[in-house]
Amino acid sequence: MWIETKTEVEEAGRSRASFSWRVLDGLMLCTGDMEHLDKYMQEKWFVLQLAVWGLRGVARVILANNPLSGALILAALYWASPWQGLLGSLGVLASTLTAVIIGQDSADVAGGLHGFNGMLVALLMGVFSSAGDWYWWLLLPACLASATCVFLFSGLTMLLDHWDLPAAVFPFNIIIVLYLLCTGTNNPYFPHNPVIPPGAVEPNDTALIAVEVIRGIPLGVGQIYATEALGPSLLILGAVVLYSPLLGVHAVLGSAVGTLAGLSMAVRHDSLYSGLSGFNGALGCMAVGGLFFTFSWRTHLLAIANAFLSAYSDIALSNLLGTVGLPACSWAATLTSTLMLLLTGSLAGYRIPIGQVKAPECNMCSRSQWEAGNTEERESTDV
Amino acid sequence: MWIETKTEVEEAGRSRASFSWRVLDGLMLCTGDMEHLDKYMQEKWFVLQLAVWGLRGVARVILANNPLSGALILAALYWASPWQGLLGSLGVLASTLTAVIIGQDSADVAGGLHGFNGMLVALLMGVFSSAGDWYWWLLLPACLASATCVFLFSGLTMLLDHWDLPAAVFPFNIIIVLYLLCTGTNNPYFPHNPVIPPGAVEPNDTALIAVEVIRGIPLGVGQIYATEALGPSLLILGAVVLYSPLLGVHAVLGSAVGTLAGLSMAVRHDSLYSGLSGFNGALGCMAVGGLFFTFSWRTHLLAIANAFLSAYSDIALSNLLGTVGLPACSWAATLTSTLMLLLTGSLAGYRIPIGQVKAPECNMCSRSQWEAGNTEERESTDV
Amino acid sequence: MWIETKTEVEEAGRSRASFSWRVLDGLMLCTGDMEHLDKYMQEKWFVLQLAVWGLRGVARVILANNPLSGALILAALYWASPWQGLLGSLGVLASTLTAVIIGQDSADVAGGLHGFNGMLVALLMGVFSSAGDWYWWLLLPACLASATCVFLFSGLTMLLDHWDLPAAVFPFNIIIVLYLLCTGTNNPYFPHNPVIPPGAVEPNDTALIAVEVIRGIPLGVGQIYATEALGPSLLILGAVVLYSPLLGVHAVLGSAVGTLAGLSMAVRHDSLYSGLSGFNGALGCMAVGGLFFTFSWRTHLLAIANAFLSAYSDIALSNLLGTVGLPACSWAATLTSTLMLLLTGSLAGYRIPIGQVKAPECNMCSRSQWEAGNTEERESTDV
Repeated sequence: MWIETKTEVEEAGRSRASFSWRVLDGLMLCTGDMEHLDKYMQEKWFVLQLAVWGLRGVARVILANNPLSGALILAALYWASPWQGLLGSLGVLASTLTAVIIGQDSADVAGGLHGFNGMLVALLMGVFSSAGDWYWWLLLPACLASATCVFLFSGLTMLLDHWDLPAAVFPFNIIIVLYLLCTGTNNPYFPHNPVIPPGAVEPNDTALIAVEVIRGIPLGVGQIYATEALGPSLLILGAVVLYSPLLGVHAVLGSAVGTLAGLSMAVRHDSLYSGLSGFNGALGCMAVGGLFFTFSWRTHLLAIANAFLSAYSDIALSNLLGTVGLPACSWAATLTSTLMLLLTGSLAGYRIPIGQVKAPECNMCSRSQWEAGNTEERESTDV
Repeated sequence: MWIETKTEVEEAGRSRASFSWRVLDGLMLCTGDMEHLDKYMQEKWFVLQLAVWGLRGVARVILANNPLSGALILAALYWASPWQGLLGSLGVLASTLTAVIIGQDSADVAGGLHGFNGMLVALLMGVFSSAGDWYWWLLLPACLASATCVFLFSGLTMLLDHWDLPAAVFPFNIIIVLYLLCTGTNNPYFPHNPVIPPGAVEPNDTALIAVEVIRGIPLGVGQIYATEALGPSLLILGAVVLYSPLLGVHAVLGSAVGTLAGLSMAVRHDSLYSGLSGFNGALGCMAVGGLFFTFSWRTHLLAIANAFLSAYSDIALSNLLGTVGLPACSWAATLTSTLMLLLTGSLAGYRIPIGQVKAPECNMCSRSQWEAGNTEERESTDV
Repeated sequence: MWIETKTEVEEAGRSRASFSWRVLDGLMLCTGDMEHLDKYMQEKWFVLQLAVWGLRGVARVILANNPLSGALILAALYWASPWQGLLGSLGVLASTLTAVIIGQDSADVAGGLHGFNGMLVALLMGVFSSAGDWYWWLLLPACLASATCVFLFSGLTMLLDHWDLPAAVFPFNIIIVLYLLCTGTNNPYFPHNPVIPPGAVEPNDTALIAVEVIRGIPLGVGQIYATEALGPSLLILGAVVLYSPLLGVHAVLGSAVGTLAGLSMAVRHDSLYSGLSGFNGALGCMAVGGLFFTFSWRTHLLAIANAFLSAYSDIALSNLLGTVGLPACSWAATLTSTLMLLLTGSLAGYRIPIGQVKAPECNMCSRSQWEAGNTEERESTDV
């Protein structure tokens, strides 16, 4: 009996272990780039495929490439404001469908690369509109502007391909600036609010509230999707952590760096409280820390440096564009991250070619495999 | 006798037919790129050669490459304003001669590629000058600015060559903006009028006059040469039709699209009436529809999309540059057409390499020949 | 005895000749690029090496590559203002050390290529600061901004490498504009003076004083280092002549051309008197005349043309950036010189590849050697 009991206990332990392993396995399947899903989806209906492409596009805005993260983020947007959620969904669908129609590379479309710019344009058009929520006429320019992003993405990819640079969110930044310039603040059909630069002096300068400033750090992550509520911002942060915990850490770190930069330049309190000071820092920190560079202590320091550079550039560009009532959007983070990708010298050795960029954790694995492979090869060559 | 009579009738008919064929032949010789003229001109005097190069340069502004079209356009300019005609002639000569002196590629010079930017700069300097017509001192900066265009054209061609992009009218757009910035509105020697952005609100907002708006469509074609009269605009349109009827159709279509875009953004009435809303659309539509892409239904739709994009970008850039009193010139059409040339995906298959661009009708012939050749080759390889 | 006396005289003459030869030899050793110093320095202490790299960086601002010129210029800066001298020294050290730390190419660092942008940024931050001299807090942003220049220099070099273009002073121009935009005129920590555009009308328009205008020509050379005193400016000019007399001649010529351009556009008198009108012309003239192009009559004329283009562009850009209170720095000279390096046609034959650029006198020697070599080779091939 003893033996049997022992076996039973072992089996029970094994099954329990296997269960928790299975749960962990299932969880692991939902993290990272979820490439296995692509194979699974190939034979499915077009509408289902389009949904996955769209959700990948939603997550791509915050540099993640995971449809579940995309679903969480979309939920956060609908939670914050259903109208904004609708605009975002419409934007991502309009640009993905346009890419299919004008015959863009199918792998790019399936990876959500043609969706994220369109989504951001539609979201920001809703944020800046002064016509209020549920102004249905806005859907027309939102769809057209989202569709135009595909042309810009395709053209810029071709232009930047020579240096192996991504088109990133340049299309969004260009289109939203053109749209705001085109309509102006007093347009009879599509009016929008002018933007107040962060350097503008406030009439009654009260003391800073420390809690509000700290609250601005997670809000900075939410501001990447133009969300100003704490709950949805934390959900978005959770979606990033689901894709890659390392990326999530860099997002919060970057937002904190951006807030620090804002404090050192004495920007308007609103800028700090709403997280607007932080989001460019977050994007800059995420791009360098783990995503486009293999994670190591040197690239971690470079990521922090890029977050500072990105945050200060954002203040500068916001002040410049604010003189004509325009927002700086994510111009600063996009430009400084592009600059970092161009770096020469010993830091360039950590850079991952654009075609091989995956979740930061995968990047580390594949690099150690390469290096092991290289060492083996070298050894075999030596022998 | 009967037989003779019959023969006589036949001969008369033949000679009549041969006469009309000869007329048609002569007319055909005057359309398209007129490459046969280059061989004929090679042994002629330099002054005669220079005249042909200049006339090609004049036509190049509106994307045509035909000296007869150039002559017609120059006649239209002198008809609209002799002073403007003189400035334009001087500009095209100054820049073509500079190109000869600093030793630019002779094929480029003979094709008029170094003339059109110089011509536009001189024309626009005359239009914006507030010193009135026949202010002779203006000829000095006009000549110098036209000559500078050659340096910019040469440098930008080198820069854009990697992507097989043309320098187009970038030199003109850069130089005219620099000139207007340099002199300012209250310069003691070369004053100029400030530009009113199209989004500026009008004090007494009257109803739009439909006839005036429709009249603005052909005026949009004339506005490419900064002409605001209907007669000269129609003559310029005729010159385009002489080069290529397909290009002429796209010019009118693009101008109509631009006017439509202006209406949807509620621009100033003056902008619509004078054709200023239409000319960027016309340029964008012409560049994509037939010239840089083989004509087909897909590229025709792309041309219309580019006309819309170009027109909206023009409104946006005009509003931006208008804040410092500058015109947007043809920045919008040049930038969007450059973007379209960079497109990847299945639409890129229709693109014609810059070195092989001819009149749209020739482009269609040469493409069908290629394809036939390719099919034959493939068949012969298959066998 | 006679013989002996004669020998004595001869020997004395010889020794005198050999002495003056030795002096000339010693002087020759101090001119040009002083490449022999690099070999000599290789085994020395790091601090001494860093000093030489820094001095080369100081001289690189004015396109010279000679540590003695750098020392003379630094002396001139300390003479003009010890605070400015300190800022400049700190800037060049901060950026050179950053380049060492982030692992940039050691040959570039030793050539001072990573120092000159940082120095200029620190100098100009001191000039524009409205907090007065010896405001110690300024050292913090000065060091950080100088360090950032290394990232920009590295990234831009990679970007421009395809056309064999130098990054030049683009990093300085970008960083100083971003810094001034970031802080604004009424920043509580780092306030700065707004810049008055050269085209601004003066209230009481007095007659020009010819002597002051002529005095502005050497001051234009000093303005490259933001120095407004005559003595230091002449010392800086002397440092350039020590490196290469040909470059010195072009510096004065370019400054004169810039002053002439300023007169023709009726800029503010202050602009002419302080040398601000001249310094872009000087830089543009030096870059083309001798440095990046082999000296000949054709390139000499091109240098003068570039000086005019550079000076007029500077007035235009100053007027544009002046509307938002920003200076045009050396944007104009950098852009026009880059354009000249892109020129195609027969003038491109005079261009020296970036990797082989030395002092103008060396450039002429090496070119004549090439040509002699080419001729010999051709002859030997013919035989």
